[in-house]
Amino acid sequence: MKHSTPFNKPYLTGKEIDYIKDAVHEGKISGNGKYTRKCQEYFEKKYSFHKCLMTTSCTDALEMAAILINIEPGDEVIMPSFTFVSTANAFVLRGARIVFADSRKDRPGMDEDSIEALITEKTKAIIPVHYAGIACDMDKIMALSEKYNLFVIEDAAQAIDSYYINKDGEKKPLGSIGHLSAFSFHETKNIISGEGGMLSINDKKFKERAEIIWEKGTNRAAFFRGDVDKYSWVDIGSSFLPSEILMAFLYAQLENLESIQKTRLNIWTKYYKGLSEWALKNEIKLPLIPDFATNNSHMFYLVFDDIKKRTVAINRLRDQGILSVFHYLSLHKSKFYKNKHDGRQLKFSDHYSDCLLRLPLYCDLSDSEISRVINIIKKIKF
Amino acid sequence: MKHSTPFNKPYLTGKEIDYIKDAVHEGKISGNGKYTRKCQEYFEKKYSFHKCLMTTSCTDALEMAAILINIEPGDEVIMPSFTFVSTANAFVLRGARIVFADSRKDRPGMDEDSIEALITEKTKAIIPVHYAGIACDMDKIMALSEKYNLFVIEDAAQAIDSYYINKDGEKKPLGSIGHLSAFSFHETKNIISGEGGMLSINDKKFKERAEIIWEKGTNRAAFFRGDVDKYSWVDIGSSFLPSEILMAFLYAQLENLESIQKTRLNIWTKYYKGLSEWALKNEIKLPLIPDFATNNSHMFYLVFDDIKKRTVAINRLRDQGILSVFHYLSLHKSKFYKNKHDGRQLKFSDHYSDCLLRLPLYCDLSDSEISRVINIIKKIKF
Repeated sequence: MKHSTPFNKPYLTGKEIDYIKDAVHEGKISGNGKYTRKCQEYFEKKYSFHKCLMTTSCTDALEMAAILINIEPGDEVIMPSFTFVSTANAFVLRGARIVFADSRKDRPGMDEDSIEALITEKTKAIIPVHYAGIACDMDKIMALSEKYNLFVIEDAAQAIDSYYINKDGEKKPLGSIGHLSAFSFHETKNIISGEGGMLSINDKKFKERAEIIWEKGTNRAAFFRGDVDKYSWVDIGSSFLPSEILMAFLYAQLENLESIQKTRLNIWTKYYKGLSEWALKNEIKLPLIPDFATNNSHMFYLVFDDIKKRTVAINRLRDQGILSVFHYLSLHKSKFYKNKHDGRQLKFSDHYSDCLLRLPLYCDLSDSEISRVINIIKKIKF
Repeated sequence: MKHSTPFNKPYLTGKEIDYIKDAVHEGKISGNGKYTRKCQEYFEKKYSFHKCLMTTSCTDALEMAAILINIEPGDEVIMPSFTFVSTANAFVLRGARIVFADSRKDRPGMDEDSIEALITEKTKAIIPVHYAGIACDMDKIMALSEKYNLFVIEDAAQAIDSYYINKDGEKKPLGSIGHLSAFSFHETKNIISGEGGMLSINDKKFKERAEIIWEKGTNRAAFFRGDVDKYSWVDIGSSFLPSEILMAFLYAQLENLESIQKTRLNIWTKYYKGLSEWALKNEIKLPLIPDFATNNSHMFYLVFDDIKKRTVAINRLRDQGILSVFHYLSLHKSKFYKNKHDGRQLKFSDHYSDCLLRLPLYCDLSDSEISRVINIIKKIKF
């Protein structure tokens, strides 16, 4: 079924095809070429990431991180249950046991105060997921990292161009705080390449090995720099390089990042203003941006107080040609993990699984469409 | 340094950009869309593969295969040492020990007669690599598979549109014989998408799980078919889906597969005819196509009798602006694996590492360039 207002529509800046043509014209469409470097340099410069490596997906960036921190069978990794399956799979593939944390009461991010009780001698890493691009409380998480000597890998899939303001008042880009971070450029994200991702490396000690793992376990990157005279197999690794075709596409997006972000914030704010009063009256929650976080307008969501109301809303919107969608199902209750989970109740994670609803948000969404969505929602009788 | 005759030049059919524009226009540039399906159906129909799943790389297709056959720590996998690092890495990532076989004396493919002696109780799979697109003797390998109950995964990275004629005279496409097979569409291959690959599934029992692993360990494919009412985490997996942008590119190539193959065969044959007499006189070997194999003209190579002669040839060609390149370094001697290898000498693998040289071969290579390469080679004094 086609919806007159879809949930997402990939936004084009107009230069994507030109840059793809240029990549093709240069005769280099495999990975690690001109556009890959341009994208990496863009991110390193704009967000002060020590080193960036573009990947075929955020999943693959997380897999690189799991290899880099030497996850081994039996290691434990703490992450929210309310997240995308790849956050967990990347570590499960290396043999980790996942210890799922609950979400916060006031927003879907991981409850930072619940983490310390989950740490054991086997814990190797904490994976904060910046849900909807809104920062977790990174001061709290980095303090645990120091206290217990744990790696922190930020799942920043949704968090491009979003910031955390730390206790000293410093404004730090998300993805620059943990030892390693993973971003997504999937078509549903703010900045896109269809499928795509990036590993950002903040702890310098990982840089050299990251390049090797990225290049299929070879020292090809060092070879091209002239550091070694032939390249060979030196480590495990995989084919994490995205095609130059996709990086050319992405670079066109990056050149327009500021206008894209402005447009999205405008839409987000219209939703927020248009629905605030109604939400308060109907005991429906809207996104909460903590003082320590900025808003990259990745997502606009409503949280109902029960699943029935959410279903009514989805159906009413769908009847009017508008596609609104729920999000993750708690991973600790999944068919794959329920017997591996330690049995703890994670009630807020379950609550967001049942009650959170995402509204259409993309650059081409017109003011009249936004108003229409708001008006339809406000007229729903529960 | 730019060479007037590079080793490889990605070939364009002319429709690639049009199809990319179409994919973008449809508003679907993530994976598993229209062009992914068109590519899969093309291969399933043309080569009678039971099921095809497009992937971000051949490496990733091999990783899917390793997951599908449940490789566990301690399992042994037999493959040639003279192969790309990904053939091995895909299985090492799941914990396998690699048992490397030697190449044949008469060509770089794995010596099929050496395999049986390498089989132990821990052996789980044999990975024949169809080097240069030329078939291994699959009757011999499939007989071992039956006798010892082993999986066969064809590394058909270079083997698109190449065939094996079995003992009953049946002509079978490479990639259709083993339980699972992996193809590459890297820019250096006959048919390209920059980076890209494909898993072909011949043993039907793998189909359902393959779709799940492909979709990040979820039953999303079944959900879209309407077989389940919501999708969730049911297995390990990764983000193996290539962007529709790349599959649009690939589909343009597939529509021209026959003319591409004809052009490449023409170039290959010119090299062969032009160099046969010279090679015989100088004890240099040219590619050997066994009676049971067809030639997909993926590669034209020379095998010198020592590394010095090869170096002379590389330098002489380079002085004339022509880039010729050697190929794999024996994996059993790599920094990563030499201490894990069981110490057997694999002299033919080492020989091809030292002495094999690949000549430029791409559709846009002109007759005069081919003649020039041939003439320069014939004048080399060793």
